[in-house]
Amino acid sequence: MRPVTFLSDYGTADEFVGVVHAVIARQAPEVRIIDLAHGIPRHGVLQGALTLARALPFAPRGVHLAVVDPEVGGPRRAIALQTAEEERLLVGPDNGLLLPAAERFGGIAAAVEISASPWRLEPVSATFHGRDLFAPVAARLAAGAPLAEAGTPLEPVELVPLDLPLPRREPGALRATVIGIDTFGNVSLLADHVDLERAGLVIGDAIAVRAGETEVVARYVRSFAEVGPGEVLVYEDAARTAAIAVNTGRADRLLGVRPGDELVLAAR
Amino acid sequence: MRPVTFLSDYGTADEFVGVVHAVIARQAPEVRIIDLAHGIPRHGVLQGALTLARALPFAPRGVHLAVVDPEVGGPRRAIALQTAEEERLLVGPDNGLLLPAAERFGGIAAAVEISASPWRLEPVSATFHGRDLFAPVAARLAAGAPLAEAGTPLEPVELVPLDLPLPRREPGALRATVIGIDTFGNVSLLADHVDLERAGLVIGDAIAVRAGETEVVARYVRSFAEVGPGEVLVYEDAARTAAIAVNTGRADRLLGVRPGDELVLAAR
Amino acid sequence: MRPVTFLSDYGTADEFVGVVHAVIARQAPEVRIIDLAHGIPRHGVLQGALTLARALPFAPRGVHLAVVDPEVGGPRRAIALQTAEEERLLVGPDNGLLLPAAERFGGIAAAVEISASPWRLEPVSATFHGRDLFAPVAARLAAGAPLAEAGTPLEPVELVPLDLPLPRREPGALRATVIGIDTFGNVSLLADHVDLERAGLVIGDAIAVRAGETEVVARYVRSFAEVGPGEVLVYEDAARTAAIAVNTGRADRLLGVRPGDELVLAAR
Repeated sequence: MRPVTFLSDYGTADEFVGVVHAVIARQAPEVRIIDLAHGIPRHGVLQGALTLARALPFAPRGVHLAVVDPEVGGPRRAIALQTAEEERLLVGPDNGLLLPAAERFGGIAAAVEISASPWRLEPVSATFHGRDLFAPVAARLAAGAPLAEAGTPLEPVELVPLDLPLPRREPGALRATVIGIDTFGNVSLLADHVDLERAGLVIGDAIAVRAGETEVVARYVRSFAEVGPGEVLVYEDAARTAAIAVNTGRADRLLGVRPGDELVLAAR
Repeated sequence: MRPVTFLSDYGTADEFVGVVHAVIARQAPEVRIIDLAHGIPRHGVLQGALTLARALPFAPRGVHLAVVDPEVGGPRRAIALQTAEEERLLVGPDNGLLLPAAERFGGIAAAVEISASPWRLEPVSATFHGRDLFAPVAARLAAGAPLAEAGTPLEPVELVPLDLPLPRREPGALRATVIGIDTFGNVSLLADHVDLERAGLVIGDAIAVRAGETEVVARYVRSFAEVGPGEVLVYEDAARTAAIAVNTGRADRLLGVRPGDELVLAAR
Repeated sequence: MRPVTFLSDYGTADEFVGVVHAVIARQAPEVRIIDLAHGIPRHGVLQGALTLARALPFAPRGVHLAVVDPEVGGPRRAIALQTAEEERLLVGPDNGLLLPAAERFGGIAAAVEISASPWRLEPVSATFHGRDLFAPVAARLAAGAPLAEAGTPLEPVELVPLDLPLPRREPGALRATVIGIDTFGNVSLLADHVDLERAGLVIGDAIAVRAGETEVVARYVRSFAEVGPGEVLVYEDAARTAAIAVNTGRADRLLGVRPGDELVLAAR
């Protein structure tokens, strides 16, 4: 018996998350469910993929259900994967969502297409595969059923890759993509301190942060406590990714950015 | 030992939901609690009733606690019901909230008034019966106590009925009420494809959707994948109710509607 | 084995709450976690402290994790406390957050500084002590490890006190601080019916409620059912604190107040 972790873009306003819990509890009453996050931006496959990869190393070995699924009802595949390390099981749509998490555990050891899984709830709706397909597959796997019985085998090379907007070095600067904004308005980038260092930016520097026409000056520090209220900081957040914050303020509003936007960080 | 499912309009900003969990865990430490939804619109008895009825067939047989209770503190009764099929137990206020769910399970086999239940927490507050009355009753029932001991017997015919705004046919059109708007802005109607068909509307049709002065043209399709980004669709959602959506957009804003509003769908 | 309750200002948009659950489940797979509230206003130490104190008497005896931590990453201590009554264990930052809850259980019997706990997850991040420090300490304590092994002993008198804005009597009036606004816009004050009575205000009175330039007239009643829709009421809420509401409306908007603001209640 393994726990199920669950991440989605369903939000908590509706019954979607609750009904997925209900389906799992009905099929596998003893299985524990851990909600990782349901506030992934709608259809934010990239944000969901990175959040999942960040969170899973802290989670117990289990079945890891993730649903950010803009193409539900279309021809996209539904999949279940087993990782090379720790034999973790990942369940979700085949749109790249599961891949960064799989790489954290040594890559993919086995893949199965579950679109027509014998465990699905009939009739499968066109819009709620979380309930009708992913939840029952996750429940059966958590209760110990073998991955091979979840569907039909698939070669890992056939999986849809994830489009990762990697940081790019420019003369004296780094161009990086906003991948997340947290509750507090802190802005996460797809970049880490190694990327910053390669662009010549190290702890203690003043950094010009440009977002379109907006430019602010930040200090590159280790923690919020090193800058005063209202000051802007660049730091490595708890996920070891570069982030921008305003002490007791909101960096997202100051910069006017949203996930997917590009920022330029330059020495000053 | 049965699980407890829990639905309410408490939202997740406050400690209301958490305190109900705490009370149940204190009285019945082994009982599992499944949150179905807490984002029911405030005092939205109709929306709560329909959401509960939609969700419960996916949930394990258990004690089904539901609290959308605009008249808390007034003379409205508090009740616990047993359904004819599956012997499910429903706990909540006597305002119609529990009735559509009971009908999904063959109607009511037994009803008990629990306003003065011996299991209540004294002193019962005037505003938080979820904590003081409904939670302890649900916990005891989940732990196996008999329904008859929860309070005093009640005839099902004495229960307060639910006012359902059923769809009405008009010449070449259907008039239906908005019963829900999900996280994504999709608009659910109290109507299904049979109602649409009786009004002469079938899959493949172009449909004029009127909300007050606003009129938009939608396509009646099976899934989002059949229309392009920005296009409006009428479809049967995962709950088998007719709904209106904008692919990658928000139908609620396009139409300017809220739960309780009426829409007219006409052939075009 | 004890349950863990969990309260924070993390919100539910991000994975913070989920990752704390994951860490606890990894270290203590059998331990139940009860979310009390995660919508405490950001950095609202006072609101968090009062909510925790209000909720815990309804919760089973356990490990009570609370994280509202504006000084994370700075020199503030992290602590674990044992209460004199019921031997409840409280885990969180040393900023006053845990103290009103401890007082509900007879005060502090033992205190431990856990900033360098042997149970912490290395490397401890500068910003997410919920994950790296508080969660593993709570998990170990819940699984039965002794408090003394969580860190180094601390004298309770060394703890940082909580600044409580107590109500003040004025001629014919009471000045009280807004400590919370719930989902429904109801405004809670740091005052109770005894404070009101000492200021000469009793059930049945008409009360002038002043917030800055705004003044409204309210009725001091026992429940919402005693006033009509749109009318303003002063009442003792389910937590036994004085509160102001508008029947079927939002008192916070009517008065234009936020947590921390002062109101004056005067006989009329």
